[in-house]
Amino acid sequence: MRGIRFFSQLCTQRYEMIGELLGREQHDIALLQEVWSEKDFLFLKRKLSSSHPYTHYFKSGVFGSGLAVFSKHRIQDALLYKYSLNGYPYMLHQGDWFGGKAVGLVIVDIFGLKAHVYVTHLHAEYSRAQDEYLPHRMVQSWELLQFVRHTSCGADLVVLGGDLNMHPQDLGNRLLRSHTGLRDCYTETDTFDGCEDGHTLIAANHFSKKQDLIPFEKGIRIDYILMKGSQKVSMKCESLSTTKGPVADKPYPYSDHEALTAELALLHSEDSRQHGSSNALAVSEQMDVVAEARAVVKEGLCQTEALRDKATYLMFSGLLLLLLPLAMAFLPCFCSFSTLGLLGAVCMSLLLSGAMLYLLFTTHIKVLKETDDQMMLTSNDLQTKLTGCRLSGSPSSDGSPELQPLSPFKREE
Amino acid sequence: MRGIRFFSQLCTQRYEMIGELLGREQHDIALLQEVWSEKDFLFLKRKLSSSHPYTHYFKSGVFGSGLAVFSKHRIQDALLYKYSLNGYPYMLHQGDWFGGKAVGLVIVDIFGLKAHVYVTHLHAEYSRAQDEYLPHRMVQSWELLQFVRHTSCGADLVVLGGDLNMHPQDLGNRLLRSHTGLRDCYTETDTFDGCEDGHTLIAANHFSKKQDLIPFEKGIRIDYILMKGSQKVSMKCESLSTTKGPVADKPYPYSDHEALTAELALLHSEDSRQHGSSNALAVSEQMDVVAEARAVVKEGLCQTEALRDKATYLMFSGLLLLLLPLAMAFLPCFCSFSTLGLLGAVCMSLLLSGAMLYLLFTTHIKVLKETDDQMMLTSNDLQTKLTGCRLSGSPSSDGSPELQPLSPFKREE
Repeated sequence: MRGIRFFSQLCTQRYEMIGELLGREQHDIALLQEVWSEKDFLFLKRKLSSSHPYTHYFKSGVFGSGLAVFSKHRIQDALLYKYSLNGYPYMLHQGDWFGGKAVGLVIVDIFGLKAHVYVTHLHAEYSRAQDEYLPHRMVQSWELLQFVRHTSCGADLVVLGGDLNMHPQDLGNRLLRSHTGLRDCYTETDTFDGCEDGHTLIAANHFSKKQDLIPFEKGIRIDYILMKGSQKVSMKCESLSTTKGPVADKPYPYSDHEALTAELALLHSEDSRQHGSSNALAVSEQMDVVAEARAVVKEGLCQTEALRDKATYLMFSGLLLLLLPLAMAFLPCFCSFSTLGLLGAVCMSLLLSGAMLYLLFTTHIKVLKETDDQMMLTSNDLQTKLTGCRLSGSPSSDGSPELQPLSPFKREE
Repeated sequence: MRGIRFFSQLCTQRYEMIGELLGREQHDIALLQEVWSEKDFLFLKRKLSSSHPYTHYFKSGVFGSGLAVFSKHRIQDALLYKYSLNGYPYMLHQGDWFGGKAVGLVIVDIFGLKAHVYVTHLHAEYSRAQDEYLPHRMVQSWELLQFVRHTSCGADLVVLGGDLNMHPQDLGNRLLRSHTGLRDCYTETDTFDGCEDGHTLIAANHFSKKQDLIPFEKGIRIDYILMKGSQKVSMKCESLSTTKGPVADKPYPYSDHEALTAELALLHSEDSRQHGSSNALAVSEQMDVVAEARAVVKEGLCQTEALRDKATYLMFSGLLLLLLPLAMAFLPCFCSFSTLGLLGAVCMSLLLSGAMLYLLFTTHIKVLKETDDQMMLTSNDLQTKLTGCRLSGSPSSDGSPELQPLSPFKREE
């Protein structure tokens, strides 16, 4: 859903259509992205008040996260994690930075089962050939998987839906799936009805930007529903469908992306291991994918350090140039007070812009380093598991450790 | 630990002393705050490489989060949550905004037990009588408790240590304890040796700012070690101690705050309920404290909306004044090009400052609204539990729900 009031085409009409669709289709849970205006959210909330009495609209950034949840089942709790790296504020025309992109979690009570439902939207890929935001999306993928794996442990079932802005086999996607155990409904479904290869961004859609689809003329799949069960419940995707661009009896589609609908069956879990793959092969794959991701993050770190150097030059240029009007003020010359003031103002703007960019890139460097450190920890932990696997034939963490008589442990702050 | 290189007093010497102390005392885990420079962290890391081989330094914001962990036991994983609201960037002399305050989690393997160890540092209280940052600290307390309760469910034991910048009975503190089930080591310890009433900021400390202690001349307790066990392990604080200002044989103390040391005993859990209090009285208390917290957040929202209005006026004043040099450029007058340029530059600065403040306060409003929404969800959930308690004598969520044959559930995005 691309819903920027006044900017997006036919916004009001499309919200009307979406409201009708959701009211008619009676899904248990609907996850929306790019609902940038709270007014539009409130419109849908009113329209769906009888079919979906439970809602949450995640607020962050300047415009908001754009993430909204509509549910038939009671939402018990909500939690938001705003991504640490999300584009640049000076890229005004792209607007990702202003959106405050995030992952939202709602805990929903589905017939007594605790469902952790995540909705997210990652940074856009503006150019696949020269993707300057790849490290940003990699950090977001890492933060997403860390958030999911550390907040889903008490869940009976986990569903993640959203616009990941990554192709199915892109590194960030592989990282997410392999480290959370989430399975892609498209590859798991019993029946599928929708666009070829499950594409969610297609040329036949009136609103999709055609240059985004070069060189993938058939379309791309960048929106997903992922799922996993627990020791208590196993999950199965019975059917998956997408909208197919134009809508019958309507002059335009619902959104620039095709909507995904999944029918998920919940069954008593028979295989208590199904939600966590931890054999040597899986661990080894997890290690490989983290190693690839670390390389991207390191590359991003180099780029950002170069950008910070440029900001430093800008700052010092401003500072040096500032000496010029100061020197002129003390020298006999033809400049008026106003000329000196104007020159001073220009130099000050250079200095301030440089300083602000320096601060921005410094925080980005901190985030990239933190992500790299966390990836290293995970990598080391996987190495320990792998050694355990090779020694015992199963990972050490699988064996429930015996409680030992502990020497009291101390801590200090 | 107040450790800002070049600004803080005797920084190098105090890191040397802290390194010696930690190396000598051999704590299992040490949590530090305000280690603002990575160089100082690396110094401690080298110094403690044999006693504490596992470390993590949490990086965020411009200076960093200041949070560091030193452990004898293997750190398996780390996760960082940066608080959404943390002061204002234009309050340069306070610097909270630049620090990127956060809560860090390290997952530590202690003799086969999974310990979730949290370290945090909340926004400072610059004036208790007129505390303009109370809503910021309230949002941080909420985010802290949400982070702890949603990431600790797989833990065998939970420890939280840090500078909460709140007195023991302050609302944020009560909110944190009542909603996470964390218990304060100071009130739970068998033996205590330290400053009167467990104070961690005292007048006898050479570095503490005396004006921070008005009207609490004896001192205040704002640093904590909190703990909770699990169904598997119960925790007990055997002893708690604090440093007492001056250090024997040294001309100055380790830090401006007194260090806390806890000796925690881990035992096989006998009472499987000990980690979660869920009787009607506790639920009712949780509801009351959330209601109080919501009032503070709402008050913060009003204040921030007023600030945004001021930013709007500033922006429009800049815009209107900009018409002045533009009009003068077309009117015959005595102004030179430079004077017009200078006037234009001044108006542009007003306009840009207004715009940036407008964006800042808009994001703050979003955060406050999101927090209020989450608090409302929790409040409603507690109401449901309370109704369950009153009907059955125990909360509904306590009874493990029966798995029902589910009608397949759908979702759409």
